Amino acid sequence: MNEVVDFINVHRDRYVEELKEYLAIPSISALPQHAADVRRAAQWTADAIARAGMQNVRVIDTPGSPVVYGDWLNAPGKPTILFYGHYDVQPVDPINLWTTPPFEASVRDGEIYARGAADDKGQVFMHIKAVEAHLQKAGRLPLNIKFFIEGEEEVGSVHLDAFVRAHKADLAADVVVISDSPMFDRGIPSICYGLRGLAYFQIDLRGTASDLHSGSLGGAVANPEFIFATVLEQMKDKVNGNVRIPGFYDDVRPLSEAERAEWRKLPFNETRYRKDLGAPKLWGEKGYSTLERVWARPTFEVNGLLSGFTGEGAKTVLPAVAMAKVSMRLVPDQDPKKIGDLFEAFVRKVAPRSVELTVTRMQGGKPWMADFDNVYVRAAGRAIEKGFGKAPVFNREGGSIPVVSTFQEELGVPSVLFGVGLPDENAHAPNEKLDLGNFHNGVIASAYLYDEIAAVTRSGDSGLKA
Amino acid sequence: MNEVVDFINVHRDRYVEELKEYLAIPSISALPQHAADVRRAAQWTADAIARAGMQNVRVIDTPGSPVVYGDWLNAPGKPTILFYGHYDVQPVDPINLWTTPPFEASVRDGEIYARGAADDKGQVFMHIKAVEAHLQKAGRLPLNIKFFIEGEEEVGSVHLDAFVRAHKADLAADVVVISDSPMFDRGIPSICYGLRGLAYFQIDLRGTASDLHSGSLGGAVANPEFIFATVLEQMKDKVNGNVRIPGFYDDVRPLSEAERAEWRKLPFNETRYRKDLGAPKLWGEKGYSTLERVWARPTFEVNGLLSGFTGEGAKTVLPAVAMAKVSMRLVPDQDPKKIGDLFEAFVRKVAPRSVELTVTRMQGGKPWMADFDNVYVRAAGRAIEKGFGKAPVFNREGGSIPVVSTFQEELGVPSVLFGVGLPDENAHAPNEKLDLGNFHNGVIASAYLYDEIAAVTRSGDSGLKA
Repeated sequence: MNEVVDFINVHRDRYVEELKEYLAIPSISALPQHAADVRRAAQWTADAIARAGMQNVRVIDTPGSPVVYGDWLNAPGKPTILFYGHYDVQPVDPINLWTTPPFEASVRDGEIYARGAADDKGQVFMHIKAVEAHLQKAGRLPLNIKFFIEGEEEVGSVHLDAFVRAHKADLAADVVVISDSPMFDRGIPSICYGLRGLAYFQIDLRGTASDLHSGSLGGAVANPEFIFATVLEQMKDKVNGNVRIPGFYDDVRPLSEAERAEWRKLPFNETRYRKDLGAPKLWGEKGYSTLERVWARPTFEVNGLLSGFTGEGAKTVLPAVAMAKVSMRLVPDQDPKKIGDLFEAFVRKVAPRSVELTVTRMQGGKPWMADFDNVYVRAAGRAIEKGFGKAPVFNREGGSIPVVSTFQEELGVPSVLFGVGLPDENAHAPNEKLDLGNFHNGVIASAYLYDEIAAVTRSGDSGLKA
Repeated sequence: MNEVVDFINVHRDRYVEELKEYLAIPSISALPQHAADVRRAAQWTADAIARAGMQNVRVIDTPGSPVVYGDWLNAPGKPTILFYGHYDVQPVDPINLWTTPPFEASVRDGEIYARGAADDKGQVFMHIKAVEAHLQKAGRLPLNIKFFIEGEEEVGSVHLDAFVRAHKADLAADVVVISDSPMFDRGIPSICYGLRGLAYFQIDLRGTASDLHSGSLGGAVANPEFIFATVLEQMKDKVNGNVRIPGFYDDVRPLSEAERAEWRKLPFNETRYRKDLGAPKLWGEKGYSTLERVWARPTFEVNGLLSGFTGEGAKTVLPAVAMAKVSMRLVPDQDPKKIGDLFEAFVRKVAPRSVELTVTRMQGGKPWMADFDNVYVRAAGRAIEKGFGKAPVFNREGGSIPVVSTFQEELGVPSVLFGVGLPDENAHAPNEKLDLGNFHNGVIASAYLYDEIAAVTRSGDSGLKA
């Protein structure tokens, strides 16, 4: 491995230059006008994987963005890693808040700023470079690897479940490795063993056929914006922060005292966290610490609101319609379908008959939680310690990677979540960035990871599937 | 007067052709790119007034759009009418909903369709033609008239109060006549004796320095959109519809039983009204009829909301900021300044400390109500009966014309509001129109109005000011 690590150290600057090319492609999957860019990013990913030495590299069409596949399966008897990531990125609005253009990567203070730097092109590229280093120096990999990189993660991976179900044999593996989450904190590498699920809705209220003059007609009919306020207000207790949808908490797995005790030991600086967010105060469900609320408790959030006149100045309009995007983050063992039904029933119950209500289900994803004492997690822990010079902590994450549940359910394969972003990486906000030190350590840790997982099997210390 | 009326009847078609020219000028005061059109409309107005035979016609610059002035003051000892109107028009968005282009007037089924047809060019032009007919046939007017036509009514008449205060002597009159409101219904001419006032605000809430990922951080901090819902929800009772700002109703002049009884006699078809609005049901403050709620009760409305992600699809953002435009319509004797203070104090009280609150006052205007038993109103009633063949009903209006209070307070002059639009004239919407039968009857009624007001003075049956 020393030669592999030396290679990685020598090529550090080249990696950054190549990554800048990758980050220059505006592969925004949410915006139809970027469809060609999305396809271009798929091809770039495929070319990079092929150049690294992977075989059978293909860009495969789906009803949405293509997926990229490539494998190296020349280690018979060794386990197979399925590496999952995504090459699509979030939109860049509001563009005026970016210090440098989102698709012209800029390095400042050891961090590379660009849309997709952390989420997830940078972390995909990290694994590609670890494979390249192995193949360049050793001529082979210590185990089998499949790359499976999608282009619709930022729009809910809408076609991924069907693709996985239709390609079970092609995607068969012993473990899935995903680098699409932040580490616990700067200088504190981590392995994530839990994710929240998601149920996302759009609600439309219509009060009248068209916008009205708020003077001539104000007082005659219900105001859909005010109705929205009364509906949303009933979703969550404004004092205690708990969600008020009946049945919402029925399937929530309680936090164990052991887990709470572990988390209390984590080096979490609540004051710095609050200041980093620029929040007057931290706030949420009573009875739980901030980490507990974000990692292990479900939430109800409003993600967007639009109605009436929103330009400069004053327009005396009584809006005909109001729209809200709302979502719930779910924890084990809540089911997105069941929670969606409870939500929809409650909205229909509390919305008055003075408006027409439309509820649209947008996205859903199951929560996920691993037993963090499994052999792959332990192998990843050793690899990270070698890459970062420090043993990782074990954390959960508030976000969702729905495909993790899909891999578990469809392929019967556990996942190891090893991310090298930072909590302040602005993944879905202006000035997204990735720390290049973490990126570099991540390439080394990935290279070790392949060895460690191969070693696990060799020493036979676990009950591997297959 | 018979010769004057004959003249008006003979020239009916010419009036429509001239009006089309006026309506072809896109004098949208809200849009800076139409500044030259606004000025052109001012000049067109001045030229039309001069051609009608008015004297001292001037286009007078202000810090905003110019005002147009012209007078005929050759009836010493007779009262003076100040005729107020505006030549600017609303924007035309959404343009795709117009059946014919907004600035190419089109006559269909006896109605002329164009932006400004009813609000207010058509009604201004009606008075110009009544003056012309008098001067053509009688060579003189039976009383003194001043035309005072502004170009910023659709942007809140921002420079009008200062102009009136600076030109009190020039604008001195016995009565102000304004034709800028709809009649009660098709076939039912009316005189409006009350207007609501306005207090308009923008509220901004900031929860964090920038937008956050609703997964990674949802549960850690307050969601400004949810906070908005809890704040707005407290402004109005969702069951009874009454405003809950403490002190809000303290100065509201109660509706007299006599007034309520009069309004119950009006030919108001509530089912047709509801269907025209396309509303599932009519809704508002309990204990008041629809007309009472719109004409005589104050309201709290949300005019616009914007926060977070509002595009197609789903974005899991936890917004940093949320913005609302809200306004209250006020009735006698509420004061916009005092109500604004009560509102602001209440918002500051109910908004939690987990967000930063900014409250911005945008517009204000006092409510107005006339004694409808005054001599000018009665004179106008007789003139309308002659023009329309039917005695007018007396109504109030839910909208605001702040300058009416200004005339009352600065000049000490009462106003008569005699409008010939219809409630479905689409004044601020696509396909604005004016019924040409009402326009024609309006020219005749205006011609009679000058005689009737002159006659009032001659018979000395009232205590005129001045």
